[in-house]
Amino acid sequence: MNIFILGSGNVAWHLSVALKNAGHHIDGVYSRNINHAEELAQKLGTKAFDQLENISSDSDLYIISVSDKAIEPIARNLLVNKPVVHTSGSVAMHVLAKFAQYGVFYPLQTFSRERIVDLKKVPFCIESNTPELFNVLEKLALDISDIVVPMSSEKRMQCHLAAVFANNFVNHFYTHAKKILNENQLSFDLIKPLIRETALKAIEIGPEHAQTGPARRGDQNVLQYHMELLSDESLKKMYSFVSDSIMKKYQSK
Amino acid sequence: MNIFILGSGNVAWHLSVALKNAGHHIDGVYSRNINHAEELAQKLGTKAFDQLENISSDSDLYIISVSDKAIEPIARNLLVNKPVVHTSGSVAMHVLAKFAQYGVFYPLQTFSRERIVDLKKVPFCIESNTPELFNVLEKLALDISDIVVPMSSEKRMQCHLAAVFANNFVNHFYTHAKKILNENQLSFDLIKPLIRETALKAIEIGPEHAQTGPARRGDQNVLQYHMELLSDESLKKMYSFVSDSIMKKYQSK
Repeated sequence: MNIFILGSGNVAWHLSVALKNAGHHIDGVYSRNINHAEELAQKLGTKAFDQLENISSDSDLYIISVSDKAIEPIARNLLVNKPVVHTSGSVAMHVLAKFAQYGVFYPLQTFSRERIVDLKKVPFCIESNTPELFNVLEKLALDISDIVVPMSSEKRMQCHLAAVFANNFVNHFYTHAKKILNENQLSFDLIKPLIRETALKAIEIGPEHAQTGPARRGDQNVLQYHMELLSDESLKKMYSFVSDSIMKKYQSK
Repeated sequence: MNIFILGSGNVAWHLSVALKNAGHHIDGVYSRNINHAEELAQKLGTKAFDQLENISSDSDLYIISVSDKAIEPIARNLLVNKPVVHTSGSVAMHVLAKFAQYGVFYPLQTFSRERIVDLKKVPFCIESNTPELFNVLEKLALDISDIVVPMSSEKRMQCHLAAVFANNFVNHFYTHAKKILNENQLSFDLIKPLIRETALKAIEIGPEHAQTGPARRGDQNVLQYHMELLSDESLKKMYSFVSDSIMKKYQSK
């Protein structure tokens, strides 16, 4: 397929490289910032754009892969008569309803520029307003991933909400753990095996069977001792809040 | 070495099997519950005990690997004149001060009976009241692990606190994520690649560089929308609490 990429962030970057490697042609890259567009365009051997009105209707598919807030203004000013999709987890499909054929092509993963992610193992949640485009998106997703899931906008947003807990919030707690270690001249390396095992264990036996620790056991001595160890007031509050939530779940049974 | 194990829980189980596999002899297993003691003793080809007064001083080392609360009463009633250690992250070494030589042998990992954990990659935090016993514990730990760290009781407790964030709290959030998915007829499998990548990314680039998501970006639209999606009041509170904490950390910069 001939594909046009709108966006130059982490998702645009990983997605366009994977599509090119799967044999598709990237016709161009748009970004408000021409330097960003050129950087990705160069990587893909294609043209860079920073004016939406210069984008022709020659491509088969237009993929808008920008921050959530920027999708609607781009859609408003993009003047093409071909299928248009976005890649967001939390924006409804109908934001693209001005186009005859539109849809969503959402990779459920966390992306950073510097990390190579194996897209084959990333679920692509797809949705479209027509069966024709749906089939196109399904085929395209299968070119780069083993896991393709039809999903309504409503369910996709629930998925994204679950991902916020499993990624954003989890990572924030890794950050707290690292801070506690570093403040005590201890290396973050010490808990890396624990972080790895915690993820693998939840994946393999399910998180509800993997829960351990003082709150799970209702061990008030340790809970109180930990509260005394924490000097930061907001961390104290966090500790007691999450511990209470764990206790409520397990101690009442 | 000839080692006596007091305890039959997850840590006792994994540790004693690893020590036996490394060529050490397990002289016996004690548990208040004789069935539990016999189950592990059978696995190790040794004797089971449920009376502390029947335990002789013939072994070279006594490892108390029981729940935190049970350590002190066992230490009080154990009548041996040989080195005694415990394996807890959150109990001070001096709870064993009645023995001439005592210490701590703490594996920083989460253990479940059914999961095989590669102890080689588990940090052992060790501490002792004498240099002689310290050397013995260091050598013993190196027989089963590549990572052995001398650590005071104070630092060990900070380490354990960090582990509560990185394991207990993280796993609790996996549980919330799974609940959100299941309530919407979506499979937990969908976020397994995300859970794996979240852990690997934090390990490789550091959690402070890996933070993404609506709270990190200060995206009020998505934050508000997620709050509307959540029906459970305590989950709503959790969402807003953790998001505020992320925003406070990143948005002020």
